[in-house]
Amino acid sequence: MFESAEIGHSIDKETYEKEVIVLREALLEAQYELKQQSRFPVIILINGIEGAGKGETVKLLNEWMDPRLIQVESFLLPSDEELSRPSQWRFWRRLPPKGRIGIFFGNWYSQMLYARVSGEIKDSRLDVAINAAERFERMLCDEGALIFKFWFHLSKKQLKERLKALESDPQRSWQLSEVDWKQSEVYDKFVRYGERVLRRTSRDYAPWYIVEGAEERYRSLTVGRTILEGLQAALKLKARPTPQPHAAPLVSSLDNKGLLGALDLTLSLDKDQYKEQLAKEQARLATLMRDKRFRSHSLIAVFEGNDAAGKGGAIRRVTDALDPRQYRIVPIAAPTEEERAQPYLWRFWRHIPARRQFTIFDRSWYGRVLVERVEGFASDADWLRAYAEINDFEEQLVDFGIVLVKFWLSIDQETQLERFKERESIPFKRFKITEEDWRNRDKWDLYVDAVGDMVDRTSTEIAPWTLVEANDKRFARVKVLRTINDALEAAYAKKKG
Amino acid sequence: MFESAEIGHSIDKETYEKEVIVLREALLEAQYELKQQSRFPVIILINGIEGAGKGETVKLLNEWMDPRLIQVESFLLPSDEELSRPSQWRFWRRLPPKGRIGIFFGNWYSQMLYARVSGEIKDSRLDVAINAAERFERMLCDEGALIFKFWFHLSKKQLKERLKALESDPQRSWQLSEVDWKQSEVYDKFVRYGERVLRRTSRDYAPWYIVEGAEERYRSLTVGRTILEGLQAALKLKARPTPQPHAAPLVSSLDNKGLLGALDLTLSLDKDQYKEQLAKEQARLATLMRDKRFRSHSLIAVFEGNDAAGKGGAIRRVTDALDPRQYRIVPIAAPTEEERAQPYLWRFWRHIPARRQFTIFDRSWYGRVLVERVEGFASDADWLRAYAEINDFEEQLVDFGIVLVKFWLSIDQETQLERFKERESIPFKRFKITEEDWRNRDKWDLYVDAVGDMVDRTSTEIAPWTLVEANDKRFARVKVLRTINDALEAAYAKKKG
Repeated sequence: MFESAEIGHSIDKETYEKEVIVLREALLEAQYELKQQSRFPVIILINGIEGAGKGETVKLLNEWMDPRLIQVESFLLPSDEELSRPSQWRFWRRLPPKGRIGIFFGNWYSQMLYARVSGEIKDSRLDVAINAAERFERMLCDEGALIFKFWFHLSKKQLKERLKALESDPQRSWQLSEVDWKQSEVYDKFVRYGERVLRRTSRDYAPWYIVEGAEERYRSLTVGRTILEGLQAALKLKARPTPQPHAAPLVSSLDNKGLLGALDLTLSLDKDQYKEQLAKEQARLATLMRDKRFRSHSLIAVFEGNDAAGKGGAIRRVTDALDPRQYRIVPIAAPTEEERAQPYLWRFWRHIPARRQFTIFDRSWYGRVLVERVEGFASDADWLRAYAEINDFEEQLVDFGIVLVKFWLSIDQETQLERFKERESIPFKRFKITEEDWRNRDKWDLYVDAVGDMVDRTSTEIAPWTLVEANDKRFARVKVLRTINDALEAAYAKKKG
Repeated sequence: MFESAEIGHSIDKETYEKEVIVLREALLEAQYELKQQSRFPVIILINGIEGAGKGETVKLLNEWMDPRLIQVESFLLPSDEELSRPSQWRFWRRLPPKGRIGIFFGNWYSQMLYARVSGEIKDSRLDVAINAAERFERMLCDEGALIFKFWFHLSKKQLKERLKALESDPQRSWQLSEVDWKQSEVYDKFVRYGERVLRRTSRDYAPWYIVEGAEERYRSLTVGRTILEGLQAALKLKARPTPQPHAAPLVSSLDNKGLLGALDLTLSLDKDQYKEQLAKEQARLATLMRDKRFRSHSLIAVFEGNDAAGKGGAIRRVTDALDPRQYRIVPIAAPTEEERAQPYLWRFWRHIPARRQFTIFDRSWYGRVLVERVEGFASDADWLRAYAEINDFEEQLVDFGIVLVKFWLSIDQETQLERFKERESIPFKRFKITEEDWRNRDKWDLYVDAVGDMVDRTSTEIAPWTLVEANDKRFARVKVLRTINDALEAAYAKKKG
């Protein structure tokens, strides 16, 4: 795999200088076209052997192109902020928006490689990391990203020469990093595990490019030209080809019996029961949130439901129990311009709570398989792949110790009608009802199908849905609180066991 | 994930009978259209809880449709044949051809689940199996297959009732299988690990369908309708959408220096050296192939190279050392009709040697990234994804203990011209030279690029390429033999260590 990057490639000075003039102009032009179209981001991953010219090449790319449209990200030691969230968070927060180029040093591949070379993880953990990287990149590409993965290579002999040169140059010796490259076995391991990683993750949509790093001119020109050709090809495609999902459409259940239909919406609490149980559950929540075991967790509550199902009221009963510094409510409406320039899940990743924090999502990432599916805002291909992407996403949250509860507040059509009418007649509630709510109501059956599929495909052992019978607001509020409390207790118990 | 398959779905008899008449006709029609188009195969995976109606449903599908176009495959205990090859081999050999439906019982999912539930494998091995299934199915779908994955579900209570019924029915009690479903914890484990498997492998291109299995009419109609709708949608697509690879085209090395160019083609052996070394290496091979350590291995040698590079002669020098029962030569020319109706790698999987056997491929699966790429027989998307598919394929071979050696026999253009002319002038060699050889010669540079990319992307630590300097036939033949011998010795040494 590395053979042809060890044969002593080189470019003479004259050819190089002639080529660079043409290349720079073409790169700049492509870069502006990228900005102009703003259809997709470009992500360039920089990996490989120490001293193979990674830094120099990136510096050069910044000289050749317009650096204002390039963000160079270096992932050294994670910050406290980053350590208190799932490990992918630090990459999500620095993804370049559409129309821009992000250059990632010390990315997910460096992390898994350094961990494996240093013996911190074993092969099986490396394979898990490889698989996660593959899924992450496929998602990014499905969302339109153009990914270049460069491996800067040196033969063992070349490395030794470079290390000597670096050592004697005090300005550069700080570059020697995490592992001790002077040890001969470090090179061997790095190449061996590197090969495993490259072999498994070089896919048609995001291939690796191996570049011989010893000779500067050859290396620079190769990287520049690879980026140019790939960028030009992608810009020419105009519309990203969205393949038809080669799969059956989802079939709604034949007997019109669904989970929602199976709910007993007559469940209710009288005033006294409500008062008592609400007080009890609120006190329980307050205690659980102050429990010292919460320090190794965080909490996410997702609220979805029919219009007028009482999400706001239920959320308020939860937050009433807490100090405002303990929680944050993220209302999800139409995405901002900045959010539209990123992969779909980006706008949710940015709000993932740090340890000890509690975030309430008033509507959520499930919008893609609910409103976006029903209204046709997302293509079939996009919402169909979203189930798997969401499961991958939630698995990361839960693996990190985040307690995740998801509520669907369910009411029937009659109750909704009553509440709509009430909202229209009460002045301070009128802002809550719009033309759109009435339009959504006409699509009731489509939403029933979408919710059914959503629960079938994303209610998992690690992140189950809770369907809440919400015709009676009191019943719903208590059930929501109790579910959160039970989930926290279960997480604490698990920690102990 | 299984919630909505536990709510007691049912269909009344009258509705069922009315629906079935329509469904059967539509299924038959779709089936004939599938046969007519013969563009893709349909693979139906049957999994789930014991006693949930898997067998009954498949029986019904055969009644409803034309059973001549359906092959039902049941993967019980592997045969000796199967045990002596990588585990995927048994699935490959039974893949339905384009235009037909294959129904797979006891497929890859059953195997990983039973192994995990019985404790034979741990979570990390389960994850590896899940990942392999995902890659396998993606490849099948990229090759056009339409995959349905059905999980027949029962609640724990329903299972208990079914088991009682089965037990008292002597005709059916043989159905109780590998694990003891009567144990309550078996159900729990099966559902827990099943959920993990379903969550990870339900992708847009091959989603899982969970079917409540308790009530026969509902279950049958649901499966039938799901297949019908999916099949109709796929038939309507007409051309399979082949997405443009969203990646840079491969860049050939800028200084025109490649691995092939770096070969020293003046290497040669004089007659005496050749005689002596050939005899020595042939004797060595004969001994190594009779070594008892070969019993746990098999051997595959792949021969690729320029036209007239001497593949045939080199192969003969290898086989000269052996008893004809010890090896098999598989010459790869244009695929047969049967082979064209299968995924690309199928024609190679069928020739994978069993343990203790030696197969020589005279040209190979690398045709896709060589001639098919250069001649445009494969789309860019197809040959670009082939590198990863080939690496996955070879990893399975090597993991199973197969010793895999791959040769590229390299000559320069002058030598080729001489040999072409010689072939034309010698009557008994004239059959070896065709118009096509001359045409290929005009594409010399394109082949140089293709070979370079091939080696860069598929010469891996586990399955390296050996580039053979073949201007001198004697040198080439000895190098080939020596490489095979070294590879066998290395494999034996590893076994010991």
